[in-house]
Amino acid sequence: MPMNNKIRHLENVALSEDGREVIIIDQTRLPGELHYIRLSSPEELYLAIFELKIRGAPAIGIFAAYGLCALAAQILNSENFHQRLREYGEYLNSSRPTAVNLSWAIQRLLAIAEAHKDRSPQDLLPLLQQEARAIHQQDVSMCRAIAEYGKSLLRENIGILTHCNAGPLATSRYGTALGPILLAHEQGMQLRVFADETRPLLQGARLTAYELQQAGVDTTLICDNMASQVMKNGWVDICFVGCDRVAMNGDTANKIGTSGVAILAKHYGIPFYVLGPSSSIDKNCQSAADIPIELRSKEEICSKYYMKPMAPAGVKCYNPAFDVTEHNLISGIITEKGIIRPPFRENLEKLMSEAEWEGPQSE
Amino acid sequence: MPMNNKIRHLENVALSEDGREVIIIDQTRLPGELHYIRLSSPEELYLAIFELKIRGAPAIGIFAAYGLCALAAQILNSENFHQRLREYGEYLNSSRPTAVNLSWAIQRLLAIAEAHKDRSPQDLLPLLQQEARAIHQQDVSMCRAIAEYGKSLLRENIGILTHCNAGPLATSRYGTALGPILLAHEQGMQLRVFADETRPLLQGARLTAYELQQAGVDTTLICDNMASQVMKNGWVDICFVGCDRVAMNGDTANKIGTSGVAILAKHYGIPFYVLGPSSSIDKNCQSAADIPIELRSKEEICSKYYMKPMAPAGVKCYNPAFDVTEHNLISGIITEKGIIRPPFRENLEKLMSEAEWEGPQSE
Repeated sequence: MPMNNKIRHLENVALSEDGREVIIIDQTRLPGELHYIRLSSPEELYLAIFELKIRGAPAIGIFAAYGLCALAAQILNSENFHQRLREYGEYLNSSRPTAVNLSWAIQRLLAIAEAHKDRSPQDLLPLLQQEARAIHQQDVSMCRAIAEYGKSLLRENIGILTHCNAGPLATSRYGTALGPILLAHEQGMQLRVFADETRPLLQGARLTAYELQQAGVDTTLICDNMASQVMKNGWVDICFVGCDRVAMNGDTANKIGTSGVAILAKHYGIPFYVLGPSSSIDKNCQSAADIPIELRSKEEICSKYYMKPMAPAGVKCYNPAFDVTEHNLISGIITEKGIIRPPFRENLEKLMSEAEWEGPQSE
Repeated sequence: MPMNNKIRHLENVALSEDGREVIIIDQTRLPGELHYIRLSSPEELYLAIFELKIRGAPAIGIFAAYGLCALAAQILNSENFHQRLREYGEYLNSSRPTAVNLSWAIQRLLAIAEAHKDRSPQDLLPLLQQEARAIHQQDVSMCRAIAEYGKSLLRENIGILTHCNAGPLATSRYGTALGPILLAHEQGMQLRVFADETRPLLQGARLTAYELQQAGVDTTLICDNMASQVMKNGWVDICFVGCDRVAMNGDTANKIGTSGVAILAKHYGIPFYVLGPSSSIDKNCQSAADIPIELRSKEEICSKYYMKPMAPAGVKCYNPAFDVTEHNLISGIITEKGIIRPPFRENLEKLMSEAEWEGPQSE
């Protein structure tokens, strides 16, 4: 297969050459502007996470690791280097307490500092930077493995429907649900993607459509309620979605609307796959009943992004951020360890008894 | 059952007392403002339709009839009254050529003028006004009959999901899909409604939620992609939607997203009903294959209503205005003549062989 679609990978997070700044794409300005910003002060780093300039649990983890390195580089001559490093870690960690990868990445760096506390800050800095790059590289490897397994399900001229955003911006190169698409495209496969806009926060329109367009993938944006008609037209051969949490019976929590896509796919006889790191599989969840659903503000539905409110003042809204797709609607779960198929409980238990993947749970 | 919820019906179109103006709610300013406007010149009347200040095929028909009366009242002393009336009729009719009710209503008034052309304009005017009021009243009666049949399916504390807008603003008092809800509420029944926002034009958020809120109905607005979770929660007992066209096998065209709601309803075991005038049943359509799907501009998905574009420039979009719900997903079709149940072809043919309802096809 010819390598004729070499894509330009968007590096969404990197450490500057002098090691004193973190460089990111400001995701709040997408898709209108591809704007890189350089951050160096603790406050700038904190706000970048808090204000969603960087988002997606794996991306936040990588960012926090580089951020701590940048701060360390600025206090090498400080008398209380180790104490200040821990304080910076706590401060960054408080920016978005629910992102598991954030505290996990910071802990990995602080553990390195602790293990080598007899060394000078000057000698310690390269070790911290090495650990941050390892976190980044492990995410790249995980995404690449998911992309390879997912790609094995694709063929020439296939139509793929995806929901929300599980691409490079939320992770690192390739992403999870978008990984097989980007990899196959890069290797010259013709394919076309239908991206649900994903109300209310429009991650599909703002980010997925942008990432696929940047990569040169044939992409069509639709409203969420058009997926049925697109499937009825015979344009969709397979569905790829990300995951926030997978229960031990295969029930999967992901962005609101995912379960609707799965039900439509079943109705139209289209395979439906969930893609994510094996760390998303939660041993403590036996089924959907154990997965709590986060409810968010009505402002996201009624007024966010609009010139003026588009719903009557005082109307009630129900705004769940996630839903649960029942395992019997899922054709397979694709992790960096391979493709898990039904019966999910048996096969997930087998997978979980193998050596642990070392990353934390992914958003 | 106590009459404890007497609702204030929004009169969306009326002739002024002196008969020289038409008064409407400017629907483009909803839900932010309930603003009535008075229109008298041919240009104002034309633009009100063209700019969607009045919308919904039945409402447009009623509006055009009153509009022609208002114009007639202004030219009673004109030497060529009849010729000018016909010219005004043609002019109004050109405002939105695809709305069947528009030309039908104008033709009804011009036929009255033709049948009484020996009378003076002064004597003819009351006959024209009488015909316009008859068009209005027939729509009220049709909606009321649909509301009564639909209400027979409701019971205390029922949960209803609806999509798009088929309420009073698009028709006359009660509306079609919202008719049973408004009537049952008025008669004291406790019920709760989930309204899909209905992307991309947000008729559910802007109009349905507004109408139900005005009437005092317990209403919850959701994004289209949340319907699955709402059904999974057990909150929906029945679905009511409008229709644009019904084929002789029961296949039904309605606002984009309707077929998705029907598939979800079937998955969760929830009855799904289509409501509309019997004039929506198209003898020339044998099945979905005969129903063309209108495609609209990508601007509606990418930038309409937003402060700035929410999708990358140049992205492809697919924006069908309607979809077709297959007859095997439909529990029943509710018209002013009663509730039609499967087998639809047999029962629709029986209905159509009965005396014709005199209205045109409704939007």
